[in-house]
Amino acid sequence: MPFDSVNTVGLVHPEVAQFDEPLQLACGRTLSSYELVYETYGTLNDDRSNAVLICHALSGHHHAAGYHSEDDRKPGWWEQCIGPGKPIDTNRFFVVSLNNLGGCNGSTGPTSINPETGKVWGPDFPPVRVRDWVNSQARLADRLGIDCWAAIVGGSLGGMQAMRWALEYPDRLRHCVVIASALRLSAQNIAFNEVARQAIESDPAFADGHYQENNEVPTRGLGLARMVGHITYLSDDAMASKFGRDLRSGTLELGDEDQVEFQVQSYLRYQGNQFSGNFDANTYMLMTRALDYFDLAREYDDDAVKAFRKANCSFLVVSFTTDWRFSPARSREIVDALIAADKPVTYTNIDADEGHDAFLLPIPRYIDVFSAYMQRVAEGN
Amino acid sequence: MPFDSVNTVGLVHPEVAQFDEPLQLACGRTLSSYELVYETYGTLNDDRSNAVLICHALSGHHHAAGYHSEDDRKPGWWEQCIGPGKPIDTNRFFVVSLNNLGGCNGSTGPTSINPETGKVWGPDFPPVRVRDWVNSQARLADRLGIDCWAAIVGGSLGGMQAMRWALEYPDRLRHCVVIASALRLSAQNIAFNEVARQAIESDPAFADGHYQENNEVPTRGLGLARMVGHITYLSDDAMASKFGRDLRSGTLELGDEDQVEFQVQSYLRYQGNQFSGNFDANTYMLMTRALDYFDLAREYDDDAVKAFRKANCSFLVVSFTTDWRFSPARSREIVDALIAADKPVTYTNIDADEGHDAFLLPIPRYIDVFSAYMQRVAEGN
Repeated sequence: MPFDSVNTVGLVHPEVAQFDEPLQLACGRTLSSYELVYETYGTLNDDRSNAVLICHALSGHHHAAGYHSEDDRKPGWWEQCIGPGKPIDTNRFFVVSLNNLGGCNGSTGPTSINPETGKVWGPDFPPVRVRDWVNSQARLADRLGIDCWAAIVGGSLGGMQAMRWALEYPDRLRHCVVIASALRLSAQNIAFNEVARQAIESDPAFADGHYQENNEVPTRGLGLARMVGHITYLSDDAMASKFGRDLRSGTLELGDEDQVEFQVQSYLRYQGNQFSGNFDANTYMLMTRALDYFDLAREYDDDAVKAFRKANCSFLVVSFTTDWRFSPARSREIVDALIAADKPVTYTNIDADEGHDAFLLPIPRYIDVFSAYMQRVAEGN
Repeated sequence: MPFDSVNTVGLVHPEVAQFDEPLQLACGRTLSSYELVYETYGTLNDDRSNAVLICHALSGHHHAAGYHSEDDRKPGWWEQCIGPGKPIDTNRFFVVSLNNLGGCNGSTGPTSINPETGKVWGPDFPPVRVRDWVNSQARLADRLGIDCWAAIVGGSLGGMQAMRWALEYPDRLRHCVVIASALRLSAQNIAFNEVARQAIESDPAFADGHYQENNEVPTRGLGLARMVGHITYLSDDAMASKFGRDLRSGTLELGDEDQVEFQVQSYLRYQGNQFSGNFDANTYMLMTRALDYFDLAREYDDDAVKAFRKANCSFLVVSFTTDWRFSPARSREIVDALIAADKPVTYTNIDADEGHDAFLLPIPRYIDVFSAYMQRVAEGN
């Protein structure tokens, strides 16, 4: 067994919820039916007041904690923060983690069959916004009998969902935990996403998104997209200490330079290859667009204070010092707007070398602050 | 006429120098002959003591100032800094600007004919290091009768050439001007270059570099590479103030999201397209590798102080506050090593919003400091 059952939720099993009531999307189109795959950890208490929703980021999914089999080599993506005695303590909370609509890990998305055509949706799957995710998550809450979440928690794009919940369903959450996120992407962030999408579109195998019908996978384009993303999730310092200028092969002295490869090159290629074997290109396009288009305050006259006045919950906002993709300055904008809107907010900027990736890592002060806040949540404060 | 002749060197004409003495390259291979295309601005004085060499950056070339015809819409790439009354004052200096070996603007490189095969070199052109450029530039100096440069000036990759000159030919320059450069690239920088190269290699039209034989151009790959580069040359702030989240087309309200395009996306695509029509992919591979492999102190036991002890000139080092590709911290490493090596050095960190691109722009304090330093150079101090 790869795990010590004291420190993990252990074996978990995904479940599927089928929804047959049509879902009106922000783009104007309607999904007549859809499925959401999700996992739960811990036990829902009698008054159904201990439920925590996990919202995933760009390439995340429902499998946030535990193992799918005893042979599983890797646990869920947020094992560091979800489990017995961890910040989101499964001894106290009933945790729900789903794959978002439009995803490629089991929920209805571009790789699913369009019931109206009998063919895979592919690039014709409707564009999905953060608010559509929130609406579909609210239906999942209904299904599970959860009127009000103790907390909704998300990092990065997940934090955007948590904030949107606070505005759309202000009476359905008591706490909103927003980690390494932003009120909206900067031009630089949009630019990186655009490069990623162009890389995918440039891959001839992508075929305007119709690769599944051709039994092809745009692995090079998707790998490139991931490489760009990956560099931006790490800090310059983290890359320096992880790889420096170490060589994997070849020599920088006299010789054939075709053989020279830096460790960082090899690492990035590996990351790109791994990802392109496991993720769907149309989903990547869809998810990055949802990120780009998100703008919490747009319909509130571009005034985040006005937007947050609708909220009715307490907030924890966390940023990381070396995160340059969702920098501390972006989190401070959230905090400033919350304070001006007279909402209870706790903010911490965590010293961490790991850039945006820090939100997934067991950094002691981060874990401590997160645990302390969730303890307040558990105690109903 | 597009220019006011008071503020520019005006009409200029490239010249070609042919070299028939074999050049031994750092990789161990030898070029039996080669050509360098160059321009000169101003007049060489009688004692040949007022010559300034301009070393270009990644995608630069010999055309640094002035216009090639009266219809020319754009002047040379460093028109802001070279000309009458400008920092590199052509009333005082004789300026030499060349296209480096391996380039694609007229000097011998991957697009040239390999005399041994009668075919274009393409990907078989030997890899070129910064030291090879310096050696070929020294031969050009010999040809022009310049024993000792008043100054050698370069930004970014150009600054690396200037520093290498100071170590390889310590008695052939009096001043070394190193702008927005570094002793070596960081892992993050190498990573961005690797993404750029992968983008080019992933373009089927690239054909392992043999696109010229196929009469093809890997425009998509080269465009993508440029997009990645371009984002990293601008600061987050510069992109925010230049584009923000402004839309070029479509709407973020209800509607078809395929139509939504941010200004920054459109700008990047334009930049990518422009570049891929004007630059050679094999040259881009070669230039980025020269950048990655450069490491000033490698052969000096990785000790930059020991390296700089060989130098015999004065230094001006300039960085820009928002440059995150060649950050002020990298320039301070140069300055610290120069001070420890007991070399005369002037250092300034210029407040600028424009990121790495700032070195090409007319930022008043930058122009003032640069002008003042070059005045010292002109006065023989």
